[in-house]
Amino acid sequence: MTDTLKGIYPPLTTPFIDDEVSFDKFLENLIKYEMKILSGYVLFGSNGESVFLTREEKLQLITTIRKHTNRKIIVGTGLDSIKETISLTNDAAEAGADYALIITPSFFKSEMKHHTFLNYFTKVADSVMIPVILYNVPKFTGVNLEAETIVELSSHPNIIALKDSTEISSRISELAANVHADFRLIVGTASVLFSGLSSGAVGGILALANIAPDECLQIYNLMREKNFERALEIQNRMIPVNKAVTAKFGVAGLKAAMDMMGYFGGNPRLPLEPLNEAQLIELKMILKKASLID
Amino acid sequence: MTDTLKGIYPPLTTPFIDDEVSFDKFLENLIKYEMKILSGYVLFGSNGESVFLTREEKLQLITTIRKHTNRKIIVGTGLDSIKETISLTNDAAEAGADYALIITPSFFKSEMKHHTFLNYFTKVADSVMIPVILYNVPKFTGVNLEAETIVELSSHPNIIALKDSTEISSRISELAANVHADFRLIVGTASVLFSGLSSGAVGGILALANIAPDECLQIYNLMREKNFERALEIQNRMIPVNKAVTAKFGVAGLKAAMDMMGYFGGNPRLPLEPLNEAQLIELKMILKKASLID
Amino acid sequence: MTDTLKGIYPPLTTPFIDDEVSFDKFLENLIKYEMKILSGYVLFGSNGESVFLTREEKLQLITTIRKHTNRKIIVGTGLDSIKETISLTNDAAEAGADYALIITPSFFKSEMKHHTFLNYFTKVADSVMIPVILYNVPKFTGVNLEAETIVELSSHPNIIALKDSTEISSRISELAANVHADFRLIVGTASVLFSGLSSGAVGGILALANIAPDECLQIYNLMREKNFERALEIQNRMIPVNKAVTAKFGVAGLKAAMDMMGYFGGNPRLPLEPLNEAQLIELKMILKKASLID
Amino acid sequence: MTDTLKGIYPPLTTPFIDDEVSFDKFLENLIKYEMKILSGYVLFGSNGESVFLTREEKLQLITTIRKHTNRKIIVGTGLDSIKETISLTNDAAEAGADYALIITPSFFKSEMKHHTFLNYFTKVADSVMIPVILYNVPKFTGVNLEAETIVELSSHPNIIALKDSTEISSRISELAANVHADFRLIVGTASVLFSGLSSGAVGGILALANIAPDECLQIYNLMREKNFERALEIQNRMIPVNKAVTAKFGVAGLKAAMDMMGYFGGNPRLPLEPLNEAQLIELKMILKKASLID
Repeated sequence: MTDTLKGIYPPLTTPFIDDEVSFDKFLENLIKYEMKILSGYVLFGSNGESVFLTREEKLQLITTIRKHTNRKIIVGTGLDSIKETISLTNDAAEAGADYALIITPSFFKSEMKHHTFLNYFTKVADSVMIPVILYNVPKFTGVNLEAETIVELSSHPNIIALKDSTEISSRISELAANVHADFRLIVGTASVLFSGLSSGAVGGILALANIAPDECLQIYNLMREKNFERALEIQNRMIPVNKAVTAKFGVAGLKAAMDMMGYFGGNPRLPLEPLNEAQLIELKMILKKASLID
Repeated sequence: MTDTLKGIYPPLTTPFIDDEVSFDKFLENLIKYEMKILSGYVLFGSNGESVFLTREEKLQLITTIRKHTNRKIIVGTGLDSIKETISLTNDAAEAGADYALIITPSFFKSEMKHHTFLNYFTKVADSVMIPVILYNVPKFTGVNLEAETIVELSSHPNIIALKDSTEISSRISELAANVHADFRLIVGTASVLFSGLSSGAVGGILALANIAPDECLQIYNLMREKNFERALEIQNRMIPVNKAVTAKFGVAGLKAAMDMMGYFGGNPRLPLEPLNEAQLIELKMILKKASLID
Repeated sequence: MTDTLKGIYPPLTTPFIDDEVSFDKFLENLIKYEMKILSGYVLFGSNGESVFLTREEKLQLITTIRKHTNRKIIVGTGLDSIKETISLTNDAAEAGADYALIITPSFFKSEMKHHTFLNYFTKVADSVMIPVILYNVPKFTGVNLEAETIVELSSHPNIIALKDSTEISSRISELAANVHADFRLIVGTASVLFSGLSSGAVGGILALANIAPDECLQIYNLMREKNFERALEIQNRMIPVNKAVTAKFGVAGLKAAMDMMGYFGGNPRLPLEPLNEAQLIELKMILKKASLID
Repeated sequence: MTDTLKGIYPPLTTPFIDDEVSFDKFLENLIKYEMKILSGYVLFGSNGESVFLTREEKLQLITTIRKHTNRKIIVGTGLDSIKETISLTNDAAEAGADYALIITPSFFKSEMKHHTFLNYFTKVADSVMIPVILYNVPKFTGVNLEAETIVELSSHPNIIALKDSTEISSRISELAANVHADFRLIVGTASVLFSGLSSGAVGGILALANIAPDECLQIYNLMREKNFERALEIQNRMIPVNKAVTAKFGVAGLKAAMDMMGYFGGNPRLPLEPLNEAQLIELKMILKKASLID
């Protein structure tokens, strides 16, 4: 069953016009992505600006996308509150979500240890109607899921995968050797797509797939054909682009790059701000150098 | 008007029985606090485990406390989402809250800079029906409100105060010299109550006030009488206790200490766990050494 | 004996002309400091740019100052290597140093735990000819001496004091209650001079004392007379200055402020750079506002 | 010329008996390493415990190894002091060193920016008799060489390479596209050997090569033959071992593993401590699982 997690999933950005969600622009982008051989979509990943969305907006977006795709829909529904997480996840499931991507709780940072994470994820996974994908993203949460915690959680029948958004390429290799046989590993950033796939990951949830889905898919397919050399070539060409739309310019940069690539990016939601002129020029140069635009 | 912010405010813990909010225990504690000369109460501070509460639980708790006190009620209503923050704050106001304590947004850590904070707090303060108190707590959020940002925000007519929960005692002094004349400074941890009050703070929102309200009030009153020596003596006696119920044992420790002091503490909510036996013994020794219990 | 540690000690900066140590300028400054009621001097504190000095330069500076003062001389001689630390300390003692200020080892950060620190400081203190003062400065070392480690080391007959350069004002209070009766606590930054002295510290090693020795001495003396109010007034006036010559502008700022105050500051040594024009103007305004210059 | 940097270099540990350097054990190990096709040796890398060695011990070790090998000798000679760095580097060159591995200065962490690093490395590289290899190791120094700084320094005629000891696999790819054509990139940890070599690195300075030189050489050679699949297999098998002898157990673990593998490891120097029994058992299991021992 979890083989459905194979492949490339863009964590879709949320389009805003006048700071309100634009469902039209959202669907315009979706139509373009449906023409690529993507395995599915993630809603409300970090780059979906999920922390800026209301509960109602989230459910409406799920309902909307469910009507327009048969692909797998993974939704980010994790909050520090177990009750709120269960409630939102089950409402998301009813609205059409296939999997729940649950970020680590993180507010009481020094308390977020092995047992706390076990408590949290076990309780959530026991109580939700769809399978859970663990989401580890220390740069935003300030906490880290250690290997031993992931290994222990991997035996839970309703916890089926991990999205790991660190750039530590040895994580996947270390985990692959130890997690439950049915548990799947997904890389969370394109900079480790090659090394992750070569070490046991089955796919990627990649911000980069919002702007360069073809290149992400090429790396994925070349790896399956064991054409490592050509895969590396594309991977290396994409690294500066990936850095630009993540660490360097953040979600504002990702959205600006989408605009340059023919998708609708638009502005991030307040309090974030769009790139300034100098940043836009730098971003365009990076895309050019990577041969994504002329 | 903002002189109402003078004094000591306990950030009330939320009692749970079988992991559900106990309104009875909440009121039992309140009756005891009403017998002390506290200026008011904070609901949904960090130690109120606000991140583990649902929206409904929060509003119900406000309604409950409003019926039983005439003192000022400050409620924590800040979330990363501006829309959710405004909505929750206004609902809280209708339920009886007097002030909103708004924590810094923090998810996109590297984007949380001067302008982002200005965008966020200005938009929120413009749109809510009750005055805003800024809440800076880097140990939980991973971000810090710099002095210049606070100074700029201090001129907004609906932003009336700062709760600063760093332990850097020079912050208050530095800010006092620069913020708008009507803006108030509140220390967020008892370890800097003395130095804060001596440098320009008007009061404290103190976890310690949940278990030792008398001592907090004594320090406050002795400082107003310029009896620095006696104030210091109590402050120094309280420092190990304060450390125990914050950095050392967290909210589980604060609640255990409440139980030892005759209030209802109980367990923290899942995924947090209560103290173990060894920790309880150590905590009891700390309270004894500070002459809070025999 | 350790009562000689009472009072205010400037951690002297090292003057450079054309990037070489200027012993003339060093003595010119010393003559001015000898006219103040300082208890002694620290050579090779962080602000002495000790990490940029050669072993020979250090020993020559000790020899030089020893000839020109009868006051106590504390020298920074700590290095990660135990052997080098013992050797340098003993050579410093022969050159005239009275006490050794030994910074925590820090290279293998994750290994620097309780036992490692005990191993290090015990071995060093057992082997040197002059008493040892522990030096904790996490902002430069990235490691922290925990209270329990300091308490255990405080019983060693040749470890007589701690210079704590954190800004956590509760540290002194917490330690004072637990260290050996003969052990002394010294604050390492002027922003916690008032709170430190009021909680058990006997003196201060203060970068600020390089530029404003009178004010540091006034705070110290007013505290001894229990004139807390006047002490606080000066303390609060000095906080922005202290921040400017430490966190804000670093040693380059401290040296520029010395130039403005009639001492010789000059440039920091390479690779550090002096302040630029805009920074100098900002610094001058800060000194003016604190009434240190007209 | 810099093609001599190709290949695998173990950063040799320093053997101690009774806490003193054992030159005999050092040579015993060397004889074994000379039988492997290693390109050369690094003395005084982090794992050489260079921070615990005296200047005299360092020079004597260089003299010793130079007499017994014709391979390239890279020595760690970087200190915060530019003068001391130049002096030690030139003495090392006279003792027989071929290249100087210069760690970033780091004491004044917040001052260690682009220009400071340019000042430092330019001055050092201008003044030393042997070529300079930049050494970036944030986990020990707390500072990071940004890509733009490395790119600018790569044009200096006497700065020939970078050893990057982060685990961020995209660093090599990003740098390879931008550094001067004659500049070489060397990975500093075995966990990114595969990804580094596949993205533009020419070799590795690997703690792992102290205990598993054959496996490191196999990965290196298989990569040159474009046999990516087999290289990955070995790389993935080595990742838990590499983690054990670096992040997990540190230099004490590396030395214990050397003992298990037939080399002389011995104890780390004080203040570090050897592994305890439980740790030794865990380490042995890790080596067994990786088929390094039976």
